[in-house]
Amino acid sequence: MSFREDGEAAVEWAARYLERVGELPVLAQVQPGEIRSRLPASPPEQGEPFADVLRDVDDILLPGITHWQSPRFFAYFAVSAGEPGILAELLAATLNSVAFLWRTSPASTELELLTLDWVAQLLGLPGGWHGHIEDTASTSTLAALAAAREVTGRNVVVCSEQAHSSVDKAAKLLGLEVRKAPTDSEFRLRPDALDLTDAAAVVATVGTTSTTSVDPVPAIADACADAGAWLHVDAAYAGSAWVCPELRASQEGVERADSLVVNAHKWLFTPMDCSLLWTSRPDDFRRAFSLVPEYLRTSDEADSLSDYGPALGRRFRSLKLWAVLRCYGREGLQQRIREAVRLAALFEGWVREEPGWDVCAPRPFSLVCFRHEGSDEHNEQIVERINRSGEAFLSHTRLGDRYVIRLAIGNERTSETDVQRAWDALRAASAD
Amino acid sequence: MSFREDGEAAVEWAARYLERVGELPVLAQVQPGEIRSRLPASPPEQGEPFADVLRDVDDILLPGITHWQSPRFFAYFAVSAGEPGILAELLAATLNSVAFLWRTSPASTELELLTLDWVAQLLGLPGGWHGHIEDTASTSTLAALAAAREVTGRNVVVCSEQAHSSVDKAAKLLGLEVRKAPTDSEFRLRPDALDLTDAAAVVATVGTTSTTSVDPVPAIADACADAGAWLHVDAAYAGSAWVCPELRASQEGVERADSLVVNAHKWLFTPMDCSLLWTSRPDDFRRAFSLVPEYLRTSDEADSLSDYGPALGRRFRSLKLWAVLRCYGREGLQQRIREAVRLAALFEGWVREEPGWDVCAPRPFSLVCFRHEGSDEHNEQIVERINRSGEAFLSHTRLGDRYVIRLAIGNERTSETDVQRAWDALRAASAD
Repeated sequence: MSFREDGEAAVEWAARYLERVGELPVLAQVQPGEIRSRLPASPPEQGEPFADVLRDVDDILLPGITHWQSPRFFAYFAVSAGEPGILAELLAATLNSVAFLWRTSPASTELELLTLDWVAQLLGLPGGWHGHIEDTASTSTLAALAAAREVTGRNVVVCSEQAHSSVDKAAKLLGLEVRKAPTDSEFRLRPDALDLTDAAAVVATVGTTSTTSVDPVPAIADACADAGAWLHVDAAYAGSAWVCPELRASQEGVERADSLVVNAHKWLFTPMDCSLLWTSRPDDFRRAFSLVPEYLRTSDEADSLSDYGPALGRRFRSLKLWAVLRCYGREGLQQRIREAVRLAALFEGWVREEPGWDVCAPRPFSLVCFRHEGSDEHNEQIVERINRSGEAFLSHTRLGDRYVIRLAIGNERTSETDVQRAWDALRAASAD
Repeated sequence: MSFREDGEAAVEWAARYLERVGELPVLAQVQPGEIRSRLPASPPEQGEPFADVLRDVDDILLPGITHWQSPRFFAYFAVSAGEPGILAELLAATLNSVAFLWRTSPASTELELLTLDWVAQLLGLPGGWHGHIEDTASTSTLAALAAAREVTGRNVVVCSEQAHSSVDKAAKLLGLEVRKAPTDSEFRLRPDALDLTDAAAVVATVGTTSTTSVDPVPAIADACADAGAWLHVDAAYAGSAWVCPELRASQEGVERADSLVVNAHKWLFTPMDCSLLWTSRPDDFRRAFSLVPEYLRTSDEADSLSDYGPALGRRFRSLKLWAVLRCYGREGLQQRIREAVRLAALFEGWVREEPGWDVCAPRPFSLVCFRHEGSDEHNEQIVERINRSGEAFLSHTRLGDRYVIRLAIGNERTSETDVQRAWDALRAASAD
């Protein structure tokens, strides 16, 4: 095997994939078990050429891929793996750093701290916060709630009924009780209904998963201060929008957070996985996580980022974030975020103007929640029809016990034509 | 930016790096803060070419990299990112799949289940176990202990005093008490000293971090069966050795485990991060982790692997494992593992034969624990001198309250010459 030749073939495959991804059915058009049935049940005895692997990626795996990089991937939160980030992942895998201590990869640890400072500046966050990278927001929220439990000694976490399921998952792991606060008519936590008795932490959400509603963080911060509770802000999706000053109204109060999560792999054009976690209380994270056995003891006086989260081994995730920040710059990030918001506003306008269609929630960012007149089943059929056709991929939620369609914009390749195609498909499916 | 041109440059950089990594100082020769001080304190306003990023990787970051890919990286557990795995990471980042549900990336979910079956076959594990991938053994052990807590309702985890610190970390997160059992003269858990009162789980280690000792799993499995405790086997490093039938004595009893972790990113030539977690009790994992909110509900009847661990978002980690298994085959894996064990045995022989040097623990796999006559400080100076020279990277542990040097072999590029160079450096440093 020649690494250069195989590498060139891999790059060529990636280049062609990115060129043609818009032509592929967005949702994989396969049945459960279908992909696996086309692969050998046992591993090979002798090694095979990498070219054979690449061929099978195309022939066997690709039909089973749901194309998150498609410009018509509108489900969940649309994401992009920017090209500099893709190539940086190749470099990170080549270096194969495992940065559990500073000395096991000083550049990885220091670049991680630096890039988190860079992003903090881009988003207009307070100076001096300590930032590091976890794999996903689930882990970031788990880490924050562990710190909150450690420092408060309490066992209740409070969030709105619209908070992400990762809060429930983390609470279950940590043995915390979850108390759900009701929301107002725009799906925002109602601070007047907050009960912070025995609360270790409140998770306030800026950009909820269902509708991207923004909890009233200033009022929640007041309540946390009164109750001595930790304030964790989940801005996993929407936090990236703060790179645009005109979208920072949703940041009000966040400067008072004890911890904050923003997923760079959601709307900051960085490949999975890159969840950014800042805290104004790094000592409390270390209290929750630092354990130094003899075989990891060194005389280095430097931060070891494994002291801030559940995992010991840490790969070089900051490299891809750094590459994206360098190659896009503040302007490139702003331009992409503004375009996604512009397209969402455009789509929202089309829905509003079209008889028989309703927008079901305010649209502060790039997600539109809407439905067609008629039953839940009818709307569900619209979504399933489009998804099965491969023309676009949409998801849904329930609001006020009604089935609601979600169209999430965020992929950097999405153009007005793509949004128009989705809208055409929706109207056609609704008429069938 | 042209993705093809930048990609070719990235591949060329990676190829050259892998060619010259053996000439670079293994441990980064920098002071804390040095790398960061050479980088701009703020992100760029305008985007820059990827070529500038690549240049700075070379000029600025590389001196701050500790080279895990070096053939003379002998610290902790030596690892390798095999070339097919590196290229597969490029493909995974290009696809940017987020496989939290089957439908969000059927190929990713199915390939993960398949490759875990492949590895189970390679290692001679029981058929029918459910396997999936977590980022690190810390997370795998956390997941297993969460399942054990869920199913037993108890709050004690038992392990030997030689167990990895990830058990303590997971227990702290889960609110479990850790009860440490004493070990015998060869650092193996003493089953006669096991107290399983209220034990949710026992973590038995096959290949401890300090010495790669092997706990007596059959006796521990008997005790777990009697006490109704979950048996989790941590074979994060040594489990890969089972690909060689002659190294399977250490597997005895593992077929009775409720869960087992083997890190493919340790000794199975797969880039970080790829921790393999099998269980004979998948239902109990789902009970501990499955939470399905409305916006993730689908009608697909297929496994969603986020139901088996703490994170929701999951990147396409199985692709690199599959690429390595395909391109190396069973024979390639065996050949590499056997060579590492052969080199370790050779080095062990040199230490045994050399006056003034002692082997301090049995060597079942590819790690040698040893020391030079004289004080702990003297031995510490030997290690620090070699590490500072960049000639090799070694780590240490404490056994019986004495400082002991660890030389871990496992990188696929390590040759007899590299081990000889380390031994020459050790003898020279001991004489200074």
